[in-house]
Amino acid sequence: MSNISKDIISNSGITINQNKELYSFNLDTILLYNFARPIKKGKIVDLCSGNGALGLSLASKTSAHIYLVELQKELSKLAEKSLVDNDLMSQVTSINDDIKNVQKYLHHDSIDMIVCNPPYFTSKDSTIIKDNPILAIARHELKTDLNEVLYTIKVLLKENSHVYIVYRPDRLSELFSKMSDNKIQPKRIRFVRSHINDDANLVLVDAIKTVKESSLKVEPDLIMYENDKLSLEAKKQIEGI
Amino acid sequence: MSNISKDIISNSGITINQNKELYSFNLDTILLYNFARPIKKGKIVDLCSGNGALGLSLASKTSAHIYLVELQKELSKLAEKSLVDNDLMSQVTSINDDIKNVQKYLHHDSIDMIVCNPPYFTSKDSTIIKDNPILAIARHELKTDLNEVLYTIKVLLKENSHVYIVYRPDRLSELFSKMSDNKIQPKRIRFVRSHINDDANLVLVDAIKTVKESSLKVEPDLIMYENDKLSLEAKKQIEGI
Repeated sequence: MSNISKDIISNSGITINQNKELYSFNLDTILLYNFARPIKKGKIVDLCSGNGALGLSLASKTSAHIYLVELQKELSKLAEKSLVDNDLMSQVTSINDDIKNVQKYLHHDSIDMIVCNPPYFTSKDSTIIKDNPILAIARHELKTDLNEVLYTIKVLLKENSHVYIVYRPDRLSELFSKMSDNKIQPKRIRFVRSHINDDANLVLVDAIKTVKESSLKVEPDLIMYENDKLSLEAKKQIEGI
Repeated sequence: MSNISKDIISNSGITINQNKELYSFNLDTILLYNFARPIKKGKIVDLCSGNGALGLSLASKTSAHIYLVELQKELSKLAEKSLVDNDLMSQVTSINDDIKNVQKYLHHDSIDMIVCNPPYFTSKDSTIIKDNPILAIARHELKTDLNEVLYTIKVLLKENSHVYIVYRPDRLSELFSKMSDNKIQPKRIRFVRSHINDDANLVLVDAIKTVKESSLKVEPDLIMYENDKLSLEAKKQIEGI
Protein backbone atom coordinates (compact mmCIF):
# COMPACT_ATOMS: atom_id res chain seq x y z
CA MET A 1 0.00 0.00 0.00
CA SER A 2 2.94 2.33 -0.59
CA ASN A 3 1.04 4.39 -3.14
CA ILE A 4 -1.53 5.51 -0.57
CA SER A 5 -1.50 9.19 0.35
CA LYS A 6 -3.76 11.00 2.78
CA ASP A 7 -5.29 14.25 1.54
CA ILE A 8 -7.86 16.70 2.85
CA ILE A 9 -10.40 18.67 0.82
CA SER A 10 -10.50 22.35 1.70
CA ASN A 11 -11.03 22.82 5.46
CA SER A 12 -13.14 19.69 5.99
CA GLY A 13 -10.67 18.09 8.38
CA ILE A 14 -11.55 14.65 6.95
CA THR A 15 -8.55 12.68 5.70
CA ILE A 16 -9.05 10.87 2.40
CA ASN A 17 -7.01 7.79 1.52
CA GLN A 18 -5.98 8.03 -2.09
CA ASN A 19 -4.03 5.86 -4.46
CA LYS A 20 -2.65 8.12 -7.16
CA GLU A 21 -2.24 5.10 -9.42
CA LEU A 22 -5.98 4.49 -9.35
CA TYR A 23 -8.02 7.66 -9.18
CA SER A 24 -7.57 10.70 -6.96
CA PHE A 25 -9.94 13.51 -6.21
CA ASN A 26 -9.11 16.64 -8.12
CA LEU A 27 -10.22 20.22 -8.58
CA ASP A 28 -13.70 19.14 -9.71
CA THR A 29 -14.34 17.44 -6.38
CA ILE A 30 -13.11 20.43 -4.38
CA LEU A 31 -15.27 22.87 -6.34
CA LEU A 32 -18.35 20.66 -6.03
CA TYR A 33 -17.71 20.34 -2.27
CA ASN A 34 -17.81 24.14 -2.02
CA PHE A 35 -20.72 24.63 -4.45
CA ALA A 36 -23.12 22.17 -2.78
CA ARG A 37 -25.36 23.46 0.01
CA PRO A 38 -25.65 20.49 2.36
CA ILE A 39 -28.87 19.74 4.17
CA LYS A 40 -28.48 19.55 7.95
CA LYS A 41 -30.12 16.16 8.42
CA GLY A 42 -31.75 13.41 6.37
CA LYS A 43 -30.06 11.28 3.71
CA ILE A 44 -27.33 12.27 1.25
CA VAL A 45 -26.06 10.09 -1.59
CA ASP A 46 -22.69 10.54 -3.28
CA LEU A 47 -23.34 8.80 -6.61
CA CYS A 48 -20.27 7.52 -8.47
CA SER A 49 -18.35 8.31 -5.30
CA GLY A 50 -14.91 6.95 -6.27
CA ASN A 51 -12.68 6.91 -3.21
CA GLY A 52 -15.43 8.73 -1.29
CA ALA A 53 -13.61 12.06 -1.12
CA LEU A 54 -16.68 14.23 -1.63
CA GLY A 55 -19.22 12.24 0.39
CA LEU A 56 -16.85 11.72 3.32
CA SER A 57 -15.79 15.37 3.37
CA LEU A 58 -19.43 16.49 3.52
CA ALA A 59 -19.65 14.79 6.91
CA SER A 60 -17.83 17.86 8.23
CA LYS A 61 -20.81 20.06 7.24
CA THR A 62 -23.86 17.96 8.08
CA SER A 63 -25.20 15.35 10.43
CA ALA A 64 -27.20 13.73 7.60
CA HIS A 65 -26.50 10.07 6.86
CA ILE A 66 -24.25 9.76 3.81
CA TYR A 67 -24.30 6.85 1.35
CA LEU A 68 -21.35 6.37 -1.00
CA VAL A 69 -22.30 4.45 -4.16
CA GLU A 70 -19.36 3.17 -6.18
CA LEU A 71 -19.04 0.30 -8.64
CA GLN A 72 -15.28 -0.25 -8.46
CA LYS A 73 -14.13 -2.44 -5.58
CA GLU A 74 -10.65 -0.91 -5.32
CA LEU A 75 -12.09 2.59 -4.90
CA SER A 76 -14.82 1.47 -2.47
CA LYS A 77 -12.15 -0.20 -0.33
CA LEU A 78 -10.19 3.03 -0.11
CA ALA A 79 -13.39 4.85 0.91
CA GLU A 80 -14.04 2.22 3.59
CA LYS A 81 -10.55 2.70 4.97
CA SER A 82 -11.12 6.49 5.15
CA LEU A 83 -14.50 5.91 6.79
CA VAL A 84 -12.84 3.93 9.58
CA ASP A 85 -9.84 6.27 9.87
CA ASN A 86 -12.16 9.23 10.40
CA ASP A 87 -14.45 7.34 12.78
CA LEU A 88 -17.48 7.90 10.52
CA MET A 89 -18.88 4.34 10.70
CA SER A 90 -22.17 5.50 12.18
CA GLN A 91 -22.68 8.37 9.73
CA VAL A 92 -21.41 7.01 6.40
CA THR A 93 -22.36 3.80 4.55
CA SER A 94 -20.33 2.46 1.63
CA ILE A 95 -22.30 0.69 -1.11
CA ASN A 96 -20.03 -1.15 -3.54
CA ASP A 97 -22.34 -1.93 -6.43
CA ASP A 98 -23.51 -0.83 -9.85
CA ILE A 99 -25.88 2.15 -9.75
CA LYS A 100 -28.30 -0.10 -11.69
CA ASN A 101 -28.78 -2.02 -8.43
CA VAL A 102 -29.12 0.99 -6.13
CA GLN A 103 -32.72 0.19 -5.19
CA LYS A 104 -31.47 -2.97 -3.44
CA TYR A 105 -30.03 -0.60 -0.82
CA LEU A 106 -32.05 2.61 -0.98
CA HIS A 107 -35.78 3.28 -1.47
CA HIS A 108 -37.00 5.38 -4.36
CA ASP A 109 -38.04 8.95 -3.44
CA SER A 110 -36.19 8.64 -0.13
CA ILE A 111 -33.06 10.78 -0.56
CA ASP A 112 -32.84 14.44 0.50
CA MET A 113 -29.74 15.43 -1.47
CA ILE A 114 -27.39 13.93 -4.04
CA VAL A 115 -23.87 14.93 -5.10
CA CYS A 116 -22.45 13.47 -8.28
CA ASN A 117 -19.22 13.73 -10.24
CA PRO A 118 -20.13 11.37 -13.09
CA PRO A 119 -17.85 10.06 -15.84
CA TYR A 120 -17.39 13.01 -18.22
CA PHE A 121 -16.28 11.33 -21.42
CA THR A 122 -18.33 9.17 -23.74
CA SER A 123 -17.17 5.63 -24.41
CA LYS A 124 -16.39 6.72 -27.97
CA ASP A 125 -14.00 9.40 -26.76
CA SER A 126 -10.49 8.83 -28.01
CA THR A 127 -8.73 9.66 -24.75
CA ILE A 128 -9.54 6.34 -23.03
CA ILE A 129 -6.61 5.25 -20.92
CA LYS A 130 -5.89 1.69 -21.93
CA ASP A 131 -3.36 0.95 -19.24
CA ASN A 132 -5.53 2.00 -16.32
CA PRO A 133 -8.99 0.40 -16.41
CA ILE A 134 -10.00 1.84 -13.03
CA LEU A 135 -9.30 5.40 -14.12
CA ALA A 136 -10.89 4.72 -17.51
CA ILE A 137 -14.14 3.55 -15.84
CA ALA A 138 -14.13 6.55 -13.49
CA ARG A 139 -13.72 9.01 -16.34
CA HIS A 140 -15.46 7.38 -19.30
CA GLU A 141 -18.97 6.09 -19.85
CA LEU A 142 -17.88 2.47 -19.98
CA LYS A 143 -20.08 1.06 -17.20
CA THR A 144 -22.77 3.73 -17.04
CA ASP A 145 -23.81 6.82 -18.99
CA LEU A 146 -25.32 10.23 -18.38
CA ASN A 147 -28.87 9.06 -18.92
CA GLU A 148 -28.53 6.22 -16.41
CA VAL A 149 -26.94 8.54 -13.85
CA LEU A 150 -29.78 11.06 -14.22
CA TYR A 151 -32.43 8.35 -14.16
CA THR A 152 -30.93 7.01 -10.92
CA ILE A 153 -30.96 10.52 -9.43
CA LYS A 154 -34.63 10.88 -10.37
CA VAL A 155 -35.48 7.53 -8.81
CA LEU A 156 -33.67 8.23 -5.53
CA LEU A 157 -34.43 11.91 -4.88
CA LYS A 158 -37.47 13.18 -3.03
CA GLU A 159 -39.56 15.71 -4.97
CA ASN A 160 -38.04 19.23 -4.77
CA SER A 161 -34.76 17.94 -3.34
CA HIS A 162 -31.44 19.02 -4.78
CA VAL A 163 -28.73 17.31 -6.78
CA TYR A 164 -25.31 18.93 -7.28
CA ILE A 165 -23.32 17.88 -10.33
CA VAL A 166 -19.99 18.90 -11.82
CA TYR A 167 -19.71 18.41 -15.56
CA ARG A 168 -18.02 19.47 -18.77
CA PRO A 169 -19.48 22.55 -20.47
CA ASP A 170 -19.07 20.97 -23.89
CA ARG A 171 -21.83 18.49 -22.95
CA LEU A 172 -24.08 21.09 -21.25
CA SER A 173 -26.79 20.91 -23.88
CA GLU A 174 -26.95 17.12 -23.59
CA LEU A 175 -26.95 17.42 -19.77
CA PHE A 176 -29.89 19.84 -19.78
CA SER A 177 -31.87 17.81 -22.33
CA LYS A 178 -31.41 14.58 -20.42
CA MET A 179 -32.11 16.28 -17.09
CA SER A 180 -35.35 17.56 -18.55
CA ASP A 181 -36.23 14.03 -19.79
CA ASN A 182 -35.75 12.88 -16.19
CA LYS A 183 -37.75 15.68 -14.54
CA ILE A 184 -34.64 17.30 -13.13
CA GLN A 185 -34.55 21.08 -13.54
CA PRO A 186 -31.40 23.16 -13.11
CA LYS A 187 -31.90 26.08 -10.72
CA ARG A 188 -28.40 27.53 -10.50
CA ILE A 189 -25.25 27.01 -12.55
CA ARG A 190 -21.73 28.37 -12.34
CA PHE A 191 -19.00 28.15 -14.95
CA VAL A 192 -15.35 27.70 -14.03
CA ARG A 193 -12.61 29.17 -16.22
CA SER A 194 -8.83 29.08 -15.85
CA HIS A 195 -8.57 32.74 -16.82
CA ILE A 196 -11.22 35.37 -17.40
CA ASN A 197 -10.76 35.29 -21.17
CA ASP A 198 -10.78 31.49 -21.51
CA ASP A 199 -13.69 29.30 -22.52
CA ALA A 200 -15.25 27.58 -19.51
CA ASN A 201 -13.70 24.21 -18.62
CA LEU A 202 -16.14 23.09 -15.90
CA VAL A 203 -19.74 23.74 -14.97
CA LEU A 204 -21.30 23.31 -11.52
CA VAL A 205 -25.02 22.58 -11.55
CA ASP A 206 -27.57 22.79 -8.72
CA ALA A 207 -30.84 21.16 -9.83
CA ILE A 208 -34.04 19.91 -8.27
CA LYS A 209 -36.39 17.05 -9.01
CA THR A 210 -39.68 18.57 -10.09
CA VAL A 211 -42.19 18.29 -12.90
CA LYS A 212 -42.60 22.08 -12.96
CA GLU A 213 -40.62 24.34 -15.28
CA SER A 214 -38.16 26.37 -13.31
CA SER A 215 -36.09 29.48 -13.67
CA LEU A 216 -32.30 29.21 -13.98
CA LYS A 217 -29.76 31.55 -12.39
CA VAL A 218 -26.40 31.76 -14.19
CA GLU A 219 -24.15 32.86 -11.34
CA PRO A 220 -20.91 34.85 -11.72
CA ASP A 221 -18.04 32.75 -13.08
CA LEU A 222 -15.36 31.24 -10.90
CA ILE A 223 -12.04 32.39 -12.36
CA MET A 224 -9.16 30.21 -11.13
CA TYR A 225 -6.18 32.40 -12.01
CA GLU A 226 -5.55 36.12 -12.01
CA ASN A 227 -2.16 37.31 -13.28
CA ASP A 228 -0.97 33.68 -13.20
CA LYS A 229 -1.68 33.35 -9.48
CA LEU A 230 -4.59 31.53 -7.89
CA SER A 231 -7.45 34.02 -7.52
CA LEU A 232 -8.59 34.85 -4.01
CA GLU A 233 -11.77 32.80 -4.39
CA ALA A 234 -9.94 29.80 -5.88
CA LYS A 235 -7.47 29.95 -2.99
CA LYS A 236 -10.32 30.07 -0.48
CA GLN A 237 -12.03 27.08 -2.04
CA ILE A 238 -8.90 24.97 -2.34
CA GLU A 239 -7.27 25.85 0.95
CA GLY A 240 -10.48 26.46 2.88
CA ILE A 241 -9.21 29.71 4.35
CA MET B 1 -45.78 59.71 -37.93
CA SER B 2 -44.22 62.06 -35.37
CA ASN B 3 -43.07 59.19 -33.16
CA ILE B 4 -40.74 57.83 -35.83
CA SER B 5 -37.04 58.08 -35.10
CA LYS B 6 -34.16 56.92 -37.26
CA ASP B 7 -31.49 54.88 -35.51
CA ILE B 8 -28.41 52.94 -36.58
CA ILE B 9 -27.06 49.71 -35.08
CA SER B 10 -23.35 49.81 -34.36
CA ASN B 11 -21.40 50.84 -37.48
CA SER B 12 -23.79 49.24 -39.99
CA GLY B 13 -24.64 52.53 -41.70
CA ILE B 14 -28.22 51.29 -42.22
CA THR B 15 -30.89 53.63 -40.83
CA ILE B 16 -33.75 51.91 -39.03
CA ASN B 17 -37.17 53.56 -38.76
CA GLN B 18 -38.48 53.05 -35.28
CA ASN B 19 -41.63 53.97 -33.44
CA LYS B 20 -40.77 54.06 -29.77
CA GLU B 21 -44.47 53.65 -28.96
CA LEU B 22 -44.51 50.27 -30.69
CA TYR B 23 -41.29 48.33 -30.32
CA SER B 24 -37.71 49.51 -30.78
CA PHE B 25 -34.55 47.55 -31.15
CA ASN B 26 -32.56 47.40 -27.98
CA LEU B 27 -29.33 46.04 -26.57
CA ASP B 28 -30.32 42.43 -27.40
CA THR B 29 -30.48 43.27 -31.11
CA ILE B 30 -27.14 45.09 -31.08
CA LEU B 31 -25.39 42.21 -29.30
CA LEU B 32 -26.90 39.60 -31.62
CA TYR B 33 -25.81 41.70 -34.63
CA ASN B 34 -22.23 41.56 -33.34
CA PHE B 35 -22.35 37.90 -32.25
CA ALA B 36 -23.65 36.49 -35.54
CA ARG B 37 -21.11 35.51 -38.20
CA PRO B 38 -22.86 36.32 -41.45
CA ILE B 39 -22.44 34.12 -44.49
CA LYS B 40 -21.19 36.01 -47.54
CA LYS B 41 -23.89 34.84 -49.97
CA GLY B 42 -26.99 32.64 -49.99
CA LYS B 43 -30.19 33.21 -48.01
CA ILE B 44 -30.59 34.67 -44.52
CA VAL B 45 -33.86 34.77 -42.57
CA ASP B 46 -34.53 37.17 -39.70
CA LEU B 47 -37.31 35.30 -37.89
CA CYS B 48 -39.61 37.43 -35.67
CA SER B 49 -37.90 40.43 -37.26
CA GLY B 50 -39.94 43.23 -35.68
CA ASN B 51 -39.08 46.51 -37.39
CA GLY B 52 -36.32 44.68 -39.28
CA ALA B 53 -33.45 46.29 -37.37
CA LEU B 54 -31.28 43.17 -37.25
CA GLY B 55 -31.97 41.74 -40.71
CA LEU B 56 -31.62 45.10 -42.44
CA SER B 57 -28.39 45.95 -40.60
CA LEU B 58 -26.86 42.63 -41.66
CA ALA B 59 -27.07 43.87 -45.25
CA SER B 60 -23.98 45.93 -44.39
CA LYS B 61 -22.00 42.72 -43.82
CA THR B 62 -23.19 40.34 -46.53
CA SER B 63 -24.48 40.17 -50.06
CA ALA B 64 -26.82 37.26 -49.14
CA HIS B 65 -30.54 37.78 -49.75
CA ILE B 66 -32.29 38.63 -46.48
CA TYR B 67 -35.88 37.71 -45.65
CA LEU B 68 -37.62 39.48 -42.76
CA VAL B 69 -40.47 37.42 -41.29
CA GLU B 70 -42.79 39.35 -38.98
CA LEU B 71 -46.41 38.80 -37.99
CA GLN B 72 -47.31 42.31 -36.93
CA LYS B 73 -48.35 44.62 -39.76
CA GLU B 74 -47.30 47.86 -38.02
CA LEU B 75 -43.74 46.55 -37.50
CA SER B 76 -43.47 45.08 -41.02
CA LYS B 77 -44.53 48.46 -42.44
CA LEU B 78 -41.73 50.18 -40.57
CA ALA B 79 -39.27 47.59 -41.90
CA GLU B 80 -40.54 48.18 -45.45
CA LYS B 81 -40.02 51.92 -45.07
CA SER B 82 -36.42 51.32 -43.90
CA LEU B 83 -35.88 48.91 -46.78
CA VAL B 84 -36.83 51.63 -49.27
CA ASP B 85 -34.96 54.39 -47.40
CA ASN B 86 -31.74 52.34 -47.54
CA ASP B 87 -32.25 51.28 -51.16
CA LEU B 88 -32.24 47.60 -50.21
CA MET B 89 -35.23 46.54 -52.35
CA SER B 90 -33.18 44.06 -54.37
CA GLN B 91 -31.45 42.50 -51.34
CA VAL B 92 -34.16 42.38 -48.67
CA THR B 93 -37.68 40.90 -48.80
CA SER B 94 -40.29 41.63 -46.14
CA ILE B 95 -42.73 38.81 -45.34
CA ASN B 96 -45.62 39.97 -43.18
CA ASP B 97 -47.18 36.75 -42.00
CA ASP B 98 -47.34 34.26 -39.16
CA ILE B 99 -44.27 31.99 -38.93
CA LYS B 100 -46.78 29.10 -39.18
CA ASN B 101 -47.20 30.06 -42.85
CA VAL B 102 -43.53 30.55 -43.66
CA GLN B 103 -43.45 27.67 -46.15
CA LYS B 104 -45.79 29.66 -48.39
CA TYR B 105 -42.79 31.91 -49.08
CA LEU B 106 -39.65 29.85 -48.41
CA HIS B 107 -38.78 26.22 -49.17
CA HIS B 108 -37.82 23.84 -46.37
CA ASP B 109 -34.08 23.13 -46.09
CA SER B 110 -33.29 26.17 -48.24
CA ILE B 111 -31.91 28.77 -45.81
CA ASP B 112 -28.18 29.24 -45.13
CA MET B 113 -28.45 31.24 -41.91
CA ILE B 114 -31.13 32.43 -39.49
CA VAL B 115 -31.07 35.16 -36.86
CA CYS B 116 -33.81 35.26 -34.26
CA ASN B 117 -34.74 37.42 -31.30
CA PRO B 118 -37.87 35.53 -30.23
CA PRO B 119 -40.42 36.56 -27.60
CA TYR B 120 -38.72 35.91 -24.25
CA PHE B 121 -41.61 35.70 -21.85
CA THR B 122 -44.25 33.01 -21.59
CA SER B 123 -47.86 33.95 -22.01
CA LYS B 124 -48.34 33.20 -18.31
CA ASP B 125 -45.72 35.73 -17.32
CA SER B 126 -47.18 38.47 -15.16
CA THR B 127 -45.40 41.37 -16.87
CA ILE B 128 -47.65 41.46 -19.95
CA ILE B 129 -48.21 45.05 -20.99
CA LYS B 130 -51.94 45.44 -21.32
CA ASP B 131 -51.90 48.88 -22.90
CA ASN B 132 -49.54 48.00 -25.75
CA PRO B 133 -50.61 44.86 -27.62
CA ILE B 134 -47.85 45.23 -30.24
CA LEU B 135 -45.10 45.29 -27.63
CA ALA B 136 -46.83 42.50 -25.70
CA ILE B 137 -46.85 40.25 -28.80
CA ALA B 138 -43.19 41.04 -29.55
CA ARG B 139 -42.10 40.17 -26.02
CA HIS B 140 -44.51 37.47 -24.89
CA GLU B 141 -45.46 34.09 -26.31
CA LEU B 142 -48.96 35.21 -27.23
CA LYS B 143 -48.90 34.38 -30.96
CA THR B 144 -46.05 31.86 -31.04
CA ASP B 145 -43.85 29.99 -28.59
CA LEU B 146 -40.30 28.69 -28.29
CA ASN B 147 -41.13 25.29 -29.69
CA GLU B 148 -42.81 26.72 -32.78
CA VAL B 149 -39.90 29.11 -33.35
CA LEU B 150 -37.37 26.25 -33.13
CA TYR B 151 -39.49 23.97 -35.29
CA THR B 152 -39.65 26.70 -37.95
CA ILE B 153 -35.87 27.13 -37.76
CA LYS B 154 -35.42 23.38 -38.25
CA VAL B 155 -37.77 23.37 -41.23
CA LEU B 156 -36.10 26.31 -42.98
CA LEU B 157 -32.38 25.73 -42.31
CA LYS B 158 -30.12 23.63 -44.49
CA GLU B 159 -28.28 20.83 -42.68
CA ASN B 160 -25.19 22.17 -40.83
CA SER B 161 -26.24 25.79 -41.29
CA HIS B 162 -26.23 28.21 -38.36
CA VAL B 163 -28.92 29.96 -36.36
CA TYR B 164 -28.06 32.82 -33.98
CA ILE B 165 -30.46 33.44 -31.11
CA VAL B 166 -30.53 35.85 -28.18
CA TYR B 167 -32.47 34.61 -25.16
CA ARG B 168 -32.96 34.82 -21.42
CA PRO B 169 -30.61 32.67 -19.31
CA ASP B 170 -33.44 31.73 -16.96
CA ARG B 171 -34.96 29.69 -19.81
CA LEU B 172 -31.66 28.20 -21.03
CA SER B 173 -32.48 24.67 -19.97
CA GLU B 174 -35.81 24.82 -21.81
CA LEU B 175 -34.06 26.35 -24.84
CA PHE B 176 -31.47 23.54 -25.00
CA SER B 177 -34.05 20.79 -24.46
CA LYS B 178 -36.34 22.11 -27.18
CA MET B 179 -33.40 22.74 -29.52
CA SER B 180 -32.40 19.14 -29.04
CA ASP B 181 -35.98 17.99 -29.77
CA ASN B 182 -35.71 19.93 -33.04
CA LYS B 183 -32.26 18.63 -34.06
CA ILE B 184 -30.64 22.00 -33.36
CA GLN B 185 -27.34 21.75 -31.48
CA PRO B 186 -25.68 24.72 -29.76
CA LYS B 187 -22.02 25.13 -30.76
CA ARG B 188 -21.06 28.35 -29.02
CA ILE B 189 -22.73 30.40 -26.30
CA ARG B 190 -21.86 33.64 -24.58
CA PHE B 191 -23.42 35.09 -21.45
CA VAL B 192 -23.95 38.82 -20.98
CA ARG B 193 -23.81 40.39 -17.52
CA SER B 194 -24.25 43.99 -16.41
CA HIS B 195 -21.30 43.68 -14.03
CA ILE B 196 -18.78 40.92 -13.49
CA ASN B 197 -20.37 39.82 -10.22
CA ASP B 198 -23.97 39.82 -11.49
CA ASP B 199 -25.98 36.84 -12.66
CA ALA B 200 -26.19 36.71 -16.46
CA ASN B 201 -29.11 38.62 -17.96
CA LEU B 202 -28.78 37.54 -21.61
CA VAL B 203 -27.36 34.60 -23.50
CA LEU B 204 -26.22 34.59 -27.13
CA VAL B 205 -26.42 31.20 -28.85
CA ASP B 206 -24.82 30.00 -32.08
CA ALA B 207 -26.32 26.63 -33.08
CA ILE B 208 -26.44 24.38 -36.12
CA LYS B 209 -29.05 22.06 -37.57
CA THR B 210 -27.65 18.55 -37.32
CA VAL B 211 -28.65 15.13 -36.07
CA LYS B 212 -25.16 14.59 -34.64
CA GLU B 213 -24.23 15.37 -31.05
CA SER B 214 -21.94 18.32 -30.92
CA SER B 215 -19.50 19.95 -28.57
CA LEU B 216 -20.36 23.30 -26.94
CA LYS B 217 -17.94 26.17 -26.34
CA VAL B 218 -18.87 28.50 -23.46
CA GLU B 219 -17.06 31.67 -24.51
CA PRO B 220 -15.81 34.38 -22.15
CA ASP B 221 -18.63 36.55 -20.78
CA LEU B 222 -19.51 39.93 -22.16
CA ILE B 223 -19.45 42.34 -19.20
CA MET B 224 -21.34 45.54 -19.99
CA TYR B 225 -20.08 47.82 -17.23
CA GLU B 226 -16.76 48.25 -15.46
CA ASN B 227 -16.61 50.78 -12.63
CA ASP B 228 -20.04 52.05 -13.72
CA LYS B 229 -18.80 52.94 -17.19
CA LEU B 230 -19.47 50.98 -20.37
CA SER B 231 -16.70 48.41 -20.79
CA LEU B 232 -14.43 48.76 -23.79
CA GLU B 233 -16.03 45.80 -25.54
CA ALA B 234 -19.59 46.98 -24.82
CA LYS B 235 -18.65 50.40 -26.20
CA LYS B 236 -17.19 48.80 -29.32
CA GLN B 237 -20.30 46.73 -29.90
CA ILE B 238 -22.75 49.57 -29.30
CA GLU B 239 -20.88 52.35 -31.06
CA GLY B 240 -19.17 50.17 -33.64
CA ILE B 241 -15.80 51.78 -33.03
